[in-house]
Amino acid sequence: MSVRPRVLIHGASGRMGQVLLRLAAGRDDLHVVAAVSGRAPKQRVVDGVPYFGASELGGVPEFDVAIDFSLPEGFDVLLATCVKRKAALVSGTTGLDDGQRAALYAAAATIPVLWASNFSLGVAVLQDLVARAAALLPGWDCDIVESHHTRKVDAPSGTALTLGEAAAGQGADPHYASIRAGDIVGEHLVQFTGIGERVELVHRATNRDIFAGGALHVATRLPGRAPGRHTIADLLVSALA
Amino acid sequence: MSVRPRVLIHGASGRMGQVLLRLAAGRDDLHVVAAVSGRAPKQRVVDGVPYFGASELGGVPEFDVAIDFSLPEGFDVLLATCVKRKAALVSGTTGLDDGQRAALYAAAATIPVLWASNFSLGVAVLQDLVARAAALLPGWDCDIVESHHTRKVDAPSGTALTLGEAAAGQGADPHYASIRAGDIVGEHLVQFTGIGERVELVHRATNRDIFAGGALHVATRLPGRAPGRHTIADLLVSALA
Amino acid sequence: MSVRPRVLIHGASGRMGQVLLRLAAGRDDLHVVAAVSGRAPKQRVVDGVPYFGASELGGVPEFDVAIDFSLPEGFDVLLATCVKRKAALVSGTTGLDDGQRAALYAAAATIPVLWASNFSLGVAVLQDLVARAAALLPGWDCDIVESHHTRKVDAPSGTALTLGEAAAGQGADPHYASIRAGDIVGEHLVQFTGIGERVELVHRATNRDIFAGGALHVATRLPGRAPGRHTIADLLVSALA
Amino acid sequence: MSVRPRVLIHGASGRMGQVLLRLAAGRDDLHVVAAVSGRAPKQRVVDGVPYFGASELGGVPEFDVAIDFSLPEGFDVLLATCVKRKAALVSGTTGLDDGQRAALYAAAATIPVLWASNFSLGVAVLQDLVARAAALLPGWDCDIVESHHTRKVDAPSGTALTLGEAAAGQGADPHYASIRAGDIVGEHLVQFTGIGERVELVHRATNRDIFAGGALHVATRLPGRAPGRHTIADLLVSALA
Repeated sequence: MSVRPRVLIHGASGRMGQVLLRLAAGRDDLHVVAAVSGRAPKQRVVDGVPYFGASELGGVPEFDVAIDFSLPEGFDVLLATCVKRKAALVSGTTGLDDGQRAALYAAAATIPVLWASNFSLGVAVLQDLVARAAALLPGWDCDIVESHHTRKVDAPSGTALTLGEAAAGQGADPHYASIRAGDIVGEHLVQFTGIGERVELVHRATNRDIFAGGALHVATRLPGRAPGRHTIADLLVSALA
Repeated sequence: MSVRPRVLIHGASGRMGQVLLRLAAGRDDLHVVAAVSGRAPKQRVVDGVPYFGASELGGVPEFDVAIDFSLPEGFDVLLATCVKRKAALVSGTTGLDDGQRAALYAAAATIPVLWASNFSLGVAVLQDLVARAAALLPGWDCDIVESHHTRKVDAPSGTALTLGEAAAGQGADPHYASIRAGDIVGEHLVQFTGIGERVELVHRATNRDIFAGGALHVATRLPGRAPGRHTIADLLVSALA
Repeated sequence: MSVRPRVLIHGASGRMGQVLLRLAAGRDDLHVVAAVSGRAPKQRVVDGVPYFGASELGGVPEFDVAIDFSLPEGFDVLLATCVKRKAALVSGTTGLDDGQRAALYAAAATIPVLWASNFSLGVAVLQDLVARAAALLPGWDCDIVESHHTRKVDAPSGTALTLGEAAAGQGADPHYASIRAGDIVGEHLVQFTGIGERVELVHRATNRDIFAGGALHVATRLPGRAPGRHTIADLLVSALA
Repeated sequence: MSVRPRVLIHGASGRMGQVLLRLAAGRDDLHVVAAVSGRAPKQRVVDGVPYFGASELGGVPEFDVAIDFSLPEGFDVLLATCVKRKAALVSGTTGLDDGQRAALYAAAATIPVLWASNFSLGVAVLQDLVARAAALLPGWDCDIVESHHTRKVDAPSGTALTLGEAAAGQGADPHYASIRAGDIVGEHLVQFTGIGERVELVHRATNRDIFAGGALHVATRLPGRAPGRHTIADLLVSALA
């Protein structure tokens, strides 16, 4: 691993890809060596970053880690490229089918991989705290309330379910409520209620950039790790040791 | 240690002592073998519990753990009695002087002791979570807001300071705000704010009984522990292992 | 009306009746002249208050206002007595049938009556504020989250529905979520969410005494009012003028 | 007044001016007829809006309302122009001296004017609700907590002080606490605490655009009003009647 990892952005023309490229340009703890979008780009270099089409993936320069927010169609080739190059993979692509998930887990035998539905660092910390609180407060009621903008159709949110699994893994029995209102970026409350007292754990996102920022953050930490399936919470916690 | 520890209540005629005796009567995981108050009691047995005056402490029956919510005057004799009987000590007595604190720490060489300013289990859990959050979120701003009834004169609360120390021990730089209003039993918010996101950790106490309940809870866990200074958070966490 | 209204407590042996009598004893802005319970009492006078059985209602002394937290069975006789005596009626009795409700409304032609499901003054104020906020924020999303102890079976709470009606009456379209956890006395959040901003209106009850306290408060205000159906919010607001 | 007011933007090259122009372009309930910046602009028309320098203010086309977020230097000429044209004035310019404020009040004899430190509609509603809650809850404790980004130097915020005045005007005695953390756009909590219950009124801003949006909103309502000093809350409330 280079001290300042070389990053490939996969899905460069998507909304997340654009934010990743914008934020990466302002960081000095990584540098983007390739931006890959579905079609071959008209401009070969934008702001100093070389662009490639998906069909040109074989020809990208050396990289330490790929960050992938794209579509399931391009996932297989990217995964194979990471394995071949022995590069780490950070992916937030949703809609992978069972075969693709199996391939991802198989790749984890040789490279470090991290797939997450939410790349906010605060949510990863909340997940860690929720598991700990659930373990320390057996018998307390556990309730999760999540709030998002009105365009979000799934409920409870994937993040709420992940938080609930963290609690359930320690014996809690979480109940869920969902609010869809205005343009709320995302809020999650996990509440443990006993008799005469209550512990509330809350995450509030106010800016969507945190998701791209979190992905870049983990991209600086994943290269050099042991092969395997990593989580953001684990990466953060391991940094404590 | 007996499986169902034998408990001595020190400060039995005080407000906390009365609540401890009321709650203990409803629990089957401990039993009170002696209630000690400053003066020799008129009634020798109340609701099946034998009462003693402070001057009669030498004559109390065998006990596994003393719970002490009294005044500094009686502390030295109680501590000596616990050491002599090799019993654990749970104390929430405030106003101890330096010599008494030194004696308490010295006693910890031979018996398990636990002193705390707040016996709420939820606060102990919050303290554990705050330390963890502070470690996982370096560089985030840390703010603590505590709310209590208008009769509370010290600010910030001792609990807020303890929470702040837990954060500061992991590198955070907490700022404090205090609200004194109505009959609020006690609320503590510890907030970590980053760019575009925030994590809020809250404890709300709604019933004062939780403090006596927490003291009874730790009294069931402390006997049989190694000698030393214990904390509620450590007792709860050690129960996880 | 006497300046210091003479109060009859109906349902004196119930839980609310007992709290009403305890709190009334500490107030000097009213005095209890009769406590009525279902059966003829063994003790005719308790703490200076004369007790009567329901069958003796015709023989109670003069009173200005009856406070009724009892059962539907005794409601008809009490209502008739209030009308005959030209006394006001404050009632929180639930389970009235359609005929009883019709009788209550008919009685309002001659005496002031106030029926409510929640006698917290704070909830009454919240109801007033919710209506105002809904009127001032057309087009904003409206969500109501209510939290209560695990023994409460109905959801959403009657209070949440009342708050929702206050919002809907001004054009809002409220959505509800319910949390049942621990021993929460009662919390209601009414949230108006726009684009880029949000207004949250919250009521938290921490002590059940507020419901009896609120009933006593309105009992000091209702006598002397015009006949009709009154609400707590109206009584509070009219006090402003 | 035209049904679709003609708006002059004063301070067009400033940060707020730019947001006002961007948001105004997407609205069909007003149209911008002139954008005025300190210096004579290089481009005379941008996106269909004619630009003027401050020295050319005499030559702008007819307008119904000026929106002013600029510097005190240009205020006097703008005010005189509004009076001469009988146009309304919406201003958020800070740092006006006593003479300028006196001139503004004098101008209110002939044109409708509105000056505010915070143009969020939600804050205006909160201000109205706070006054009402304070009036309805005499004797309850009143506390105000405001949170803003770390670059904000004044504390309490001007908005918190305005909210406090609304409460104090109804007899409350507000206490203040301030939090400076991360990039919080602005949050205000006004809390009324009684015995056993509490009412919390909260405003959260998550996007700075709401301030420009609110200024545009009042600009659609102010023309045609009676001369005088108006407030956002009054404009909103008067819309109810």
